[in-house]
Amino acid sequence: MTAAHWPTLDDIREGAKRIEGVVTHTPMVPSFGLSGARDAEVRIKLETTQPTRAFKVRGAANVILSHDSIDPGKGVVAYSTGNHGRAVAYLASTLGIPATVCMSHNTTADKQESLRTMGATVRLVGESQDEAAELARNLEDRGALLVDPINDPITTAGQGTIGLEIVEDWPEVDTVVVPVSGGALMAGIAQAVKSLSPRTRVVGVSMDRGAAMYESLQAGHPVAVPEVESLADSLQGGITLENHHSFEMVRDLVDDVVLVTEEEIGVAMAEAVIEERLVLEGAGATPIAALINRDRDLFGARVALVATGAMVDNLTLTRLVDLHGEQVARVLGRRP
Amino acid sequence: MTAAHWPTLDDIREGAKRIEGVVTHTPMVPSFGLSGARDAEVRIKLETTQPTRAFKVRGAANVILSHDSIDPGKGVVAYSTGNHGRAVAYLASTLGIPATVCMSHNTTADKQESLRTMGATVRLVGESQDEAAELARNLEDRGALLVDPINDPITTAGQGTIGLEIVEDWPEVDTVVVPVSGGALMAGIAQAVKSLSPRTRVVGVSMDRGAAMYESLQAGHPVAVPEVESLADSLQGGITLENHHSFEMVRDLVDDVVLVTEEEIGVAMAEAVIEERLVLEGAGATPIAALINRDRDLFGARVALVATGAMVDNLTLTRLVDLHGEQVARVLGRRP
Repeated sequence: MTAAHWPTLDDIREGAKRIEGVVTHTPMVPSFGLSGARDAEVRIKLETTQPTRAFKVRGAANVILSHDSIDPGKGVVAYSTGNHGRAVAYLASTLGIPATVCMSHNTTADKQESLRTMGATVRLVGESQDEAAELARNLEDRGALLVDPINDPITTAGQGTIGLEIVEDWPEVDTVVVPVSGGALMAGIAQAVKSLSPRTRVVGVSMDRGAAMYESLQAGHPVAVPEVESLADSLQGGITLENHHSFEMVRDLVDDVVLVTEEEIGVAMAEAVIEERLVLEGAGATPIAALINRDRDLFGARVALVATGAMVDNLTLTRLVDLHGEQVARVLGRRP
Repeated sequence: MTAAHWPTLDDIREGAKRIEGVVTHTPMVPSFGLSGARDAEVRIKLETTQPTRAFKVRGAANVILSHDSIDPGKGVVAYSTGNHGRAVAYLASTLGIPATVCMSHNTTADKQESLRTMGATVRLVGESQDEAAELARNLEDRGALLVDPINDPITTAGQGTIGLEIVEDWPEVDTVVVPVSGGALMAGIAQAVKSLSPRTRVVGVSMDRGAAMYESLQAGHPVAVPEVESLADSLQGGITLENHHSFEMVRDLVDDVVLVTEEEIGVAMAEAVIEERLVLEGAGATPIAALINRDRDLFGARVALVATGAMVDNLTLTRLVDLHGEQVARVLGRRP
């Protein structure tokens, strides 16, 4: 694959028009606490206000709406236990077509139930994500539209609409901070931001345990990493060894990719509840974690943090808030 | 006061133009859980995504921006320990004029600090809200603009822009459910909704302890009520005995005002975190509480709930989530 296959600014603009009305132009709210603590103007882009509470609906909508002949009997298919699966289920339900989400028998009953609530058919197979992917590809071969979260440039263009909105809503922004997993979100945002405002920095963030894109950048090519438990579970998973474009785009367009620890993610999730009044999953809180803990010079004076999703269970959330309350107060320079 | 002094649909439309760009056209997200549980299509209007995390910025912005000659030395003044004070402080800071918020010495250090973080001068006086109000009026006499949250029809028109957005974004809505305190929010929304869509019902909700508007409606005229501790503390306070228009508007335009118990509010706040991934203050969760617990026929098939604000301390929040988790599962028809 060459740069010719990267989604362009025009592709992203076309995506924005295509998905308008289906997805939300999300608000970007000031963080008074983080602004004071880091001597910067900090705003948080609330992808948690998408219908499915996560950004994934942008890319999935761009793919589904760009196919004008989906077989109404076969519908759409995804293999994902998380926000991408929810996005595909939601969109199919609003469009009145069937959605099938493939997952392994290891998936929790909660996640299965959540997808059924949104109208999807859940197909359980085997013990691993690989077997779920195989089933999804079988359904694709039989006529369903498989929505690919990583290697479809139309997905990447859809996620890139976040970058368009950030620069349109805040042209002065110095740095945009984005969670990095498979790289479609990071690549799309970087393309939009760098095209519209070349001087604006884009910084990626991953957890320091099993960050596939970071390790691939270090190696100079896509590598597989072992999956390690993390609060940022939405960032787990590889970038695929046959990665089509997100690896090169992140390598060439992104200024920095930094790592944050589990402790830093936990404190950031607690800060989000206590100060921002936001429920964020670990992945969605990684930009806050980076801003709090990494070198201030990385970010500049006007910083946009992309809060990507809210898929966290309440026991984890309340535990973190109770555990880290005093540390959040210290971070914000207040009496605990 | 007569109906001639009520803000009209045109006043609300003018307000919407005036405050555009300063306040957020807020997203309205589907609640999959409540929709399933109540066999209705339920959407939640996220006023918690305003810059100050509460709707109050709409009315305050409409008032401040309608005065084209604010004394830049005197600025604006409010007496409020809550979301209205934060709104006035935020707007003044974005406009580069001084804000003074008057409050009694009884106010917690947290609330004072939160206002100072937003750039306001905090003036402490006496032991009661009445003394704070007196100080604010003194500052008004000396040239500051006092922003009135209840009796200024321009405030009411600003809050009414929520009703405009709901009907524009969802013309099919059957019922709009709104927390009721001093009545400006309820009156403004009712005026907008009933003007644009007369068949749409508007339902108010208050806590069953010290609900001034509800008691006034029962009495047939504005009455004072004793202040009782409640999870919905933002709804405390009177409608003022000299009430200028909100009492009459609520009496004449609103289909129903219902009450919810402390237990119902607590479960609704827990539901918001667990299922909607939203941090809501008690007042902001009262529409969820009403939808869960009151007669289904009150609401119809398409219901918009206005989530007004997010000013809740994290200890209360985590306690409620831990306490009510199983009850939330039962409400949503799931295995606890």
